[in-house]
Amino acid sequence: MPAAFERRTRDAQTALSDAGADALVCFPSQNLFYLTGFDEDPGERHLLCLLPAEGDPTFLVPELYEKQVREASWIDDVRTWADGDDPLAAVESVVSDLGLPESPHVLVDDTMWARFTHDLRAALPDATFGLASEVLSAIRVRKDEAELDAMRRAAAAADEAMDAVRAMGADAVGLSERELAQEIERRLAEAGGDGVSFETIVGAGPNGAMPHHHHGDREVRAGEPVVLDFGTRVDGYPSDQTRTVVFDGDPSETFEDVHAVVRDAVAAGVDAVEPGVTAESVDRAAREVIEEAGYGDRFVHRTGHGVGLDVHEEPYIVTGNDRELEAGMVFSVEPGVYLPEEFGVRIEDLVAVTADGCERLNRTDRGWEC
Amino acid sequence: MPAAFERRTRDAQTALSDAGADALVCFPSQNLFYLTGFDEDPGERHLLCLLPAEGDPTFLVPELYEKQVREASWIDDVRTWADGDDPLAAVESVVSDLGLPESPHVLVDDTMWARFTHDLRAALPDATFGLASEVLSAIRVRKDEAELDAMRRAAAAADEAMDAVRAMGADAVGLSERELAQEIERRLAEAGGDGVSFETIVGAGPNGAMPHHHHGDREVRAGEPVVLDFGTRVDGYPSDQTRTVVFDGDPSETFEDVHAVVRDAVAAGVDAVEPGVTAESVDRAAREVIEEAGYGDRFVHRTGHGVGLDVHEEPYIVTGNDRELEAGMVFSVEPGVYLPEEFGVRIEDLVAVTADGCERLNRTDRGWEC
Repeated sequence: MPAAFERRTRDAQTALSDAGADALVCFPSQNLFYLTGFDEDPGERHLLCLLPAEGDPTFLVPELYEKQVREASWIDDVRTWADGDDPLAAVESVVSDLGLPESPHVLVDDTMWARFTHDLRAALPDATFGLASEVLSAIRVRKDEAELDAMRRAAAAADEAMDAVRAMGADAVGLSERELAQEIERRLAEAGGDGVSFETIVGAGPNGAMPHHHHGDREVRAGEPVVLDFGTRVDGYPSDQTRTVVFDGDPSETFEDVHAVVRDAVAAGVDAVEPGVTAESVDRAAREVIEEAGYGDRFVHRTGHGVGLDVHEEPYIVTGNDRELEAGMVFSVEPGVYLPEEFGVRIEDLVAVTADGCERLNRTDRGWEC
Repeated sequence: MPAAFERRTRDAQTALSDAGADALVCFPSQNLFYLTGFDEDPGERHLLCLLPAEGDPTFLVPELYEKQVREASWIDDVRTWADGDDPLAAVESVVSDLGLPESPHVLVDDTMWARFTHDLRAALPDATFGLASEVLSAIRVRKDEAELDAMRRAAAAADEAMDAVRAMGADAVGLSERELAQEIERRLAEAGGDGVSFETIVGAGPNGAMPHHHHGDREVRAGEPVVLDFGTRVDGYPSDQTRTVVFDGDPSETFEDVHAVVRDAVAAGVDAVEPGVTAESVDRAAREVIEEAGYGDRFVHRTGHGVGLDVHEEPYIVTGNDRELEAGMVFSVEPGVYLPEEFGVRIEDLVAVTADGCERLNRTDRGWEC
């Protein structure tokens, strides 16, 4: 595996040169994990990896991370600073050793905190700055076999949890959204998942009409639709799928109609996926089903987003994105219809583009019955 | 509660003016929650709150967040952009309505992603930029009664989980660090906590010697020290405490010695806390105990960090920080000794500075016996 990380880094250096950039600077991010194998959440301490377009990368890390960084990554040049030192001085020292041109063009992680970009700007007053995604997106967007395998296993863990939660049926009635979220997270762990890949969404009744509602005190009621959108990680790679279910009792006719429309829309979106078509054409395929049913203005978001180490990354399945799909891309297809104060319906599967179509990573029943 | 958020915002505006700043821009961050009541994780979509030094704040949010933002916050001016629109154009439009001077000084969230600071720089080409902490730290560092109450309850939930895990005793032997982390997280939820406030640390044996090791496949063995460092949230506020325990069997004499030293160090640190003393004097008090025992070079990190909406925030309890402690500050006291390849010992409590000393928020046994 260290060989894979080093290969990715060398590919990134080629891409940096091709883009006219002199260096890439990562902090604790999915880019950092992708290139070095070191996985950490962002924190207030300066932890940077500086990759010049030519030569070898250098880590600058807090002293207490040195051993972990050396164990996890293939990179030899690991410099440290200690609590109580001035981290800006440490950054300036490392930067001056990089041998960059006088006015370098430097790319930084798209998610790098202002706390650190401000110090980089201070250390490189004549530099211009861009975003890492300008060169890394094109590399990260095509998943290799090991990545696809991890994502298949993460999706299987989420499917297993979804089936288990659906099987609760009437037992779920009376639980609060928060309690149901805890139940989901327990079952994700049982299925072999590592934590959650984003904050679990349990949207009961009208809360389901807010696409990014998380979970609160509202109780699940009989006859009421519940949006369940959650994911976990396996080997660092996330899953992300959504079902809208009714745990017990009979939902309204309106709900049944809307659910059938969204189910047709997700199927149409998935059917449209193949290499060479544009990202927006998949959005179009799903959206048309909903528009024809008269709910076009209730589908208030894009149809999907790429999924890789970041749960939201390229390619975005959205109007205006004429990027052509390629084998190895993985993204969500997740149309939804939201009736404010009433309910929401969203159904989401992850798909991987193959040589001649796509592979659904999620296999569970798309219906609403429990 | 909306009154509290608005009051904090008006205080922030006064502080902005005093600091010569013309505006503050937040994205999904703890600053945003502190000022507006809207709580969200950062994402790739542009979601900004712009607060001029004078006048009223404006939200710019993705259309699908509008209802949530209006429900959660006291702010009336909520503008939206839709998937498929150009978010930079939306930012430029909102910025031009702020009525800022020609070369404004703008503060941004310390954690704001480069993705968004780059767009702000594009929308405000003549601005200079600073960090929100320059004005907000001084406000956020003193907790009000409601905040202290939430932190007491979060600490109680963590204490309850720690007692329950300690009571597992020999049953914990044979579990992997990952399984024990899942067990901890289940018990945090049972104790009323909402998720985890940072990635749970279970460091068994030599893994405990890496202060920021998370959890892996290593099994907990009898006679072996295990570092347990975890937290949860209550009403948005986190807990954070650490104990080092031996679940079963007899540890080495070296471990018993080191544990006693660290236990004395944490007591000395807590005893040193009172209004008017400096942050570094608390570090000094804990560090001296460890230095006198001959382990000074094995205590490789600062003694503590402030805790509030961010798990790591001001005041940092570190050499060189001559900031005076004030009533209402909350921070960790967490000395540690790390013997590479052998084990680590860290013991951590949160304390709140009171009018004449401090209140320990964590009350569980500091010993290693289970």
